[in-house]
Amino acid sequence: MQLLQNKVKEEGIVLSGQVLKVDSFLNHQMDPVLMKEVGKEFTRRFKDENVTRVLTIESSGIAPGIMTALEMDVPMIFARKQKSLTLREDIFVEKVYSFTKQETNEITVSKKFIKPGDRVLIVDDFLANGEAAFGLARIVEQAGAEVVGIGIVIEKAFQPGGRLLAEAGYRVESLVRIASLDDGTVTFA
Amino acid sequence: MQLLQNKVKEEGIVLSGQVLKVDSFLNHQMDPVLMKEVGKEFTRRFKDENVTRVLTIESSGIAPGIMTALEMDVPMIFARKQKSLTLREDIFVEKVYSFTKQETNEITVSKKFIKPGDRVLIVDDFLANGEAAFGLARIVEQAGAEVVGIGIVIEKAFQPGGRLLAEAGYRVESLVRIASLDDGTVTFA
Repeated sequence: MQLLQNKVKEEGIVLSGQVLKVDSFLNHQMDPVLMKEVGKEFTRRFKDENVTRVLTIESSGIAPGIMTALEMDVPMIFARKQKSLTLREDIFVEKVYSFTKQETNEITVSKKFIKPGDRVLIVDDFLANGEAAFGLARIVEQAGAEVVGIGIVIEKAFQPGGRLLAEAGYRVESLVRIASLDDGTVTFA
Repeated sequence: MQLLQNKVKEEGIVLSGQVLKVDSFLNHQMDPVLMKEVGKEFTRRFKDENVTRVLTIESSGIAPGIMTALEMDVPMIFARKQKSLTLREDIFVEKVYSFTKQETNEITVSKKFIKPGDRVLIVDDFLANGEAAFGLARIVEQAGAEVVGIGIVIEKAFQPGGRLLAEAGYRVESLVRIASLDDGTVTFA
């Protein structure tokens, strides 16, 4: 997606060989017109999948998620993240390890909102090791629903998440793929 | 806003005299069409204010915030919430007490994104005691910018936030105002 690639080129800040800061349009300040275009592009790519729900995770997934859901005219659900919680009957829970923060969170979704027969598109802002996407996919499968695809705004293709998700049989569509952040420069795949 | 009031009436669950659960369209599952209408309505109400930035707080403020920002064609910023953090030069920090969770969080916004001269519309999903709205307003004022208004999706008008914000001189526009949750019933103001 050219518009997004330009934005990454112009405004992305390479903090290390692993970390790209995009807080001017995706992670903290958000560009609503770009988010709308992201929603349109995911809708175009997954138009034959009869998506019934968009699932994302707080917080940075919510804006691209809601724009995709608007374009597809389906509800969006965002998984909540918390340190740990008392087990409850009415929620799906999965553990997700964050390599960046070096901590494990529990992500939760109410059982009311994903049902057997649902065709779920997972949307997230970043794909690195794939932990969050796998956690969301396990929740969809716990619900007896189907993951029809995973839409990623920015994939760090030099980290293994994209390959691992593909090997597990998921269709991953990343709008921008970054091959390397070496030498303080963004190189696209 | 009639559409929203109907949704509260049909789908809101009164958990106690203080707590209304709206997780089917605002807090967990989100209705994107409704969020778009919320964005349009805030834009209509604040159309003469020359808003340059929409400011909200993670996580449930992001969807109404981004839809408002899209309609107004300005960037949106969401404040991050955390338990506590090391002081940093490049961020504004304010403490916000949550009566619901009985804990104090620090909310932060990067100094890059709100500047003197900005005319900021604060958007949030709920208004109860006003702690989050006051915290966001103090951040805007720390930045030397102006709070031109506070747009709230659902105000619990039996709690003091709306009155306190008005007394402090802020213009508050709540799309739905709830007078009481007594006897398991939503009574609108």
